Amino acid sequence: MHGIVFIQDLATVMLVAGLTTVLFQRLRQPVVLGYIIAGVLVGPHTHPVVFIHDEETIRTLSELGMILLLFALGLEFSLKKLRAVGGAALVAAFAEIVLMIWIGYEIGRFFGWSAMDSLFLGAMLSISSTTIIMKALEDLGLKRERFAQLMFGILIVEDLLAIVLMALLTGIAGTGGVEAGQALAAVGRLGLFMAVSLVVGLLLVPRVVDYIARVSRNDVLLVAVLGICFGFCLLVTEMGYSVALGAFMIGAIVAESESVARIERIVTPVRDMFSAIFFVAIGMLIDPKLLLEYAWPITVVTVAVVLGKVVTCSFGSFVAGNDGRTSLRVGMGLAQIGEFSFVIASLGLTLKVTSGFLYPVAVAVSAITTFLTPYLIRSSDPLARFLGRALPNRVTGVFGAYTEWMGSLGLQGQGAVVMKMIRRLVWHVIINTALVVAVFIIAAFAYRRGFLHLDLLSDDPTVRRSLAWSLAALFSLPMIVAAYRKAGALGMLLAELSIPDRFGARTYRIRAVLGRIIPLVAMAVMGLLVAALASTILPPREVALVLVLVGVGLTWLLWRVLVQVHARLQAAIRDTLEKPGQDHPE
Amino acid sequence: MHGIVFIQDLATVMLVAGLTTVLFQRLRQPVVLGYIIAGVLVGPHTHPVVFIHDEETIRTLSELGMILLLFALGLEFSLKKLRAVGGAALVAAFAEIVLMIWIGYEIGRFFGWSAMDSLFLGAMLSISSTTIIMKALEDLGLKRERFAQLMFGILIVEDLLAIVLMALLTGIAGTGGVEAGQALAAVGRLGLFMAVSLVVGLLLVPRVVDYIARVSRNDVLLVAVLGICFGFCLLVTEMGYSVALGAFMIGAIVAESESVARIERIVTPVRDMFSAIFFVAIGMLIDPKLLLEYAWPITVVTVAVVLGKVVTCSFGSFVAGNDGRTSLRVGMGLAQIGEFSFVIASLGLTLKVTSGFLYPVAVAVSAITTFLTPYLIRSSDPLARFLGRALPNRVTGVFGAYTEWMGSLGLQGQGAVVMKMIRRLVWHVIINTALVVAVFIIAAFAYRRGFLHLDLLSDDPTVRRSLAWSLAALFSLPMIVAAYRKAGALGMLLAELSIPDRFGARTYRIRAVLGRIIPLVAMAVMGLLVAALASTILPPREVALVLVLVGVGLTWLLWRVLVQVHARLQAAIRDTLEKPGQDHPE
Repeated sequence: MHGIVFIQDLATVMLVAGLTTVLFQRLRQPVVLGYIIAGVLVGPHTHPVVFIHDEETIRTLSELGMILLLFALGLEFSLKKLRAVGGAALVAAFAEIVLMIWIGYEIGRFFGWSAMDSLFLGAMLSISSTTIIMKALEDLGLKRERFAQLMFGILIVEDLLAIVLMALLTGIAGTGGVEAGQALAAVGRLGLFMAVSLVVGLLLVPRVVDYIARVSRNDVLLVAVLGICFGFCLLVTEMGYSVALGAFMIGAIVAESESVARIERIVTPVRDMFSAIFFVAIGMLIDPKLLLEYAWPITVVTVAVVLGKVVTCSFGSFVAGNDGRTSLRVGMGLAQIGEFSFVIASLGLTLKVTSGFLYPVAVAVSAITTFLTPYLIRSSDPLARFLGRALPNRVTGVFGAYTEWMGSLGLQGQGAVVMKMIRRLVWHVIINTALVVAVFIIAAFAYRRGFLHLDLLSDDPTVRRSLAWSLAALFSLPMIVAAYRKAGALGMLLAELSIPDRFGARTYRIRAVLGRIIPLVAMAVMGLLVAALASTILPPREVALVLVLVGVGLTWLLWRVLVQVHARLQAAIRDTLEKPGQDHPE
Repeated sequence: MHGIVFIQDLATVMLVAGLTTVLFQRLRQPVVLGYIIAGVLVGPHTHPVVFIHDEETIRTLSELGMILLLFALGLEFSLKKLRAVGGAALVAAFAEIVLMIWIGYEIGRFFGWSAMDSLFLGAMLSISSTTIIMKALEDLGLKRERFAQLMFGILIVEDLLAIVLMALLTGIAGTGGVEAGQALAAVGRLGLFMAVSLVVGLLLVPRVVDYIARVSRNDVLLVAVLGICFGFCLLVTEMGYSVALGAFMIGAIVAESESVARIERIVTPVRDMFSAIFFVAIGMLIDPKLLLEYAWPITVVTVAVVLGKVVTCSFGSFVAGNDGRTSLRVGMGLAQIGEFSFVIASLGLTLKVTSGFLYPVAVAVSAITTFLTPYLIRSSDPLARFLGRALPNRVTGVFGAYTEWMGSLGLQGQGAVVMKMIRRLVWHVIINTALVVAVFIIAAFAYRRGFLHLDLLSDDPTVRRSLAWSLAALFSLPMIVAAYRKAGALGMLLAELSIPDRFGARTYRIRAVLGRIIPLVAMAVMGLLVAALASTILPPREVALVLVLVGVGLTWLLWRVLVQVHARLQAAIRDTLEKPGQDHPE
């Protein structure tokens, strides 16, 4: 009976994992380590006893664990938090990731591993572990300190960049090499997909979830939320992206619903159960013999992770304007790798581009660095004091001056307001352009698949294509108008700022021209993107010209209606993102 | 990729189930129906679209759902609650189950189905659905009323009897027929197994669970509890009993730990997820064509369930001493079948003794009766009023008199105390005897498997057997002494009650003899059971005699120590069963 074998395997996993984790909990060590040890114990490398009879099923469930882990991470993630942490986290995280990928790649090449293995090693080393850090900070009672907030910000940015990184790795693995153009295209497509899903998702999902939460008991809500989560993951894999990306994104989208606290409460146990299986499954991949064989690389990589992360993260935080002590604490806290490294390692195995030894090496490094994390955090203060004494006075003086200067810098008064306005306008233009392009791509897709049933209207493909194109144009008109308006505002603002008054009478004319150029450039870029990405429904040139002219006329006539439609859509999204008690810029 | 197919299936199940259940929740219909409809929709009978690609995995997960469903039911179940409800529930539940099995069996035979099919049909009809009733009562706001309490008691007893019933059905399915002797032996073995697991479980599990709960976070606790649950289920299946029995029992055992509320909170979402899959998997078995084909039996069975249950449960409650209105409400509320019927139907399919059509018929009947439940509960009051008017005055008068008489009856004062004492003493004797027999069986098992390593001491099998036997006797001495003492007390009490004073001087002597006979009978029964069930380690007669004599001598010497050991064990169990704020008889 298959069912009994399955229950037996599950019982073994849960019992052994329960034992090891209770032990680790008692020894005040990270629970994750306990799961991994349990995996080693029940894994296929502990001859001659066979504990797990059907590894396939356990592995399938572990995939579910990864999805739920990232979904829960997404639930905790919030677009607002990201905004609050601001630039400092971005600078630090970016510096860390780029430097760690480079260090990892160099180490891999040094040991004579393939370029792909080295690249994946670098990627694995680049992302720190949110789970482990949260647990360590909680255990040490430091969760509310300033440096902890900054670390949390860095972790959020890292999680986001990790998603981009995974998409990039998938692309690179597919083409076999790193090409700037392809990479850029991949990032562009990913950005487009993320933007569209975020906008559509934010419009739909939180409303649906809140409705369900209002009318339903917990069990129905759980089933519906899991359905949405898995469903979106499927959609994402259909598009060729990793299931992890989907899980994280839909988590972040659901996080904007009002009932997120209730959802977190009911999703957590399910996540706990499956993430336990996930980590046990990781442990099952570890062959103790392999670890001995690779003891030397593991040591080197571990040292590289600890030193590299301490230096790069401290450096990043310091450059972003924190004092030396805080920066050092941040660096010491982030010096480990965790769940995302396993996800990236899984990705490499799934894509069949990395060697088998990479996974256990990553897990071993993660285990050691995880083990070290609490000690590193605790020793950061003594180290800061020691450095303060040991370094020459002049050096510390320069450091202190820099921090002070950065602290006094921060855009204030009118400058800050203008920067904020510019940033917001740029974002509006980009998002609306992306949405327009998405509408055309969807129209092209629907046309190719015959979903539009235009053949009922006409047999002539030219007419049909023109119709499809017009349809897409009609749907995207509100977004086009919005992009045009925001680009216009942006142009005027930039003209005002960049053209000084000293041109005298001509100042106005120059400003007016510049104020017009930017929206026109935006329209041109949009047009090119649409032409390139939705070429299947592009009508012949003369037809297109006529359609565009008709569209312009229509826009002129309907300007106020279109502005209203867009304002209403925007308000709907804003409502979703805005929760009571938090003010939110327009 | 197997993983993606699995996620796809899961996404389909969750999405469709989410949709249907939200709809049913909105229409204020039982959610369970929504799950089943979802199962029909995604099931293999909705040609030509294939929704589920790997039914096997979904079915495996659904088995997990059944385990978790019964485990959670066990968690809510409590030995104390059972005691509080008392005899009324037992009478009503027993009447209902026996009558419904008979009705079901007769219906099956009437339609010309096989004896086994008919028997399973009867069993399926006999157990009402706790989940559905709870939900209906909650929706109607009647949960706190007196009749609801009584219904809850009946449901608890039913759940217990269902477990026994399933063990019986398994036994009957194995032997192919119903033989009184075998059935009795099966019940005996089951009782022994349950008694031993309960005693050992209550001694160990709640302590372990409370320890884990004290030192651990929720995720570790969840994993450990699930490990214990699945592990015990495995043990139970190894013994040849159903996994459902194991899940329910370990749930009831864990329920005696102090941290049960926390455990319920973290287990509930996991149960919700998998029980959704369980009910969807049930729906997947339904072939709409088959339902049409069996429309006639379904109608008959449905009518039988509603009428049969209303009559038998009302009758049972009334006989147990409730007034007509309460009895009728209880009967109307219990008139449906639910999750246990599916479990029993699964059992039949797993044992390969029932036909394929039985399951969908049961599900259809359950769906219809579930749908009717809220309406039946609501219409019980009007019906009671109608009956009150329609029945001749003399009949209602007799009914009222009976209720009054039963109400005034209930053992009060000294009689009640004595009855309580007798009941407790009988239980003590039975439990201790069971434990002694269990120790000998375990010793025999260990001897056969060579776990005792007695071959290191002697080559002579007689010596080895004698040693094993002595070992078992030594371990069970505290229980033997306890059984003897309690049987003695029971004998004295019974003698006091049964031999009236009119025998004059001989009264004392007769009483003394009778007070001796009962413990001797108890010892004899115990000896016979041990000899029969642990015959492999029974030493030759003369050796046994010597050993028994040595044992008696030893017992005489160590009497006080043994009494103390037993008292301490008993106190440990009592502590487990006793929670603050509730007083508990010694």
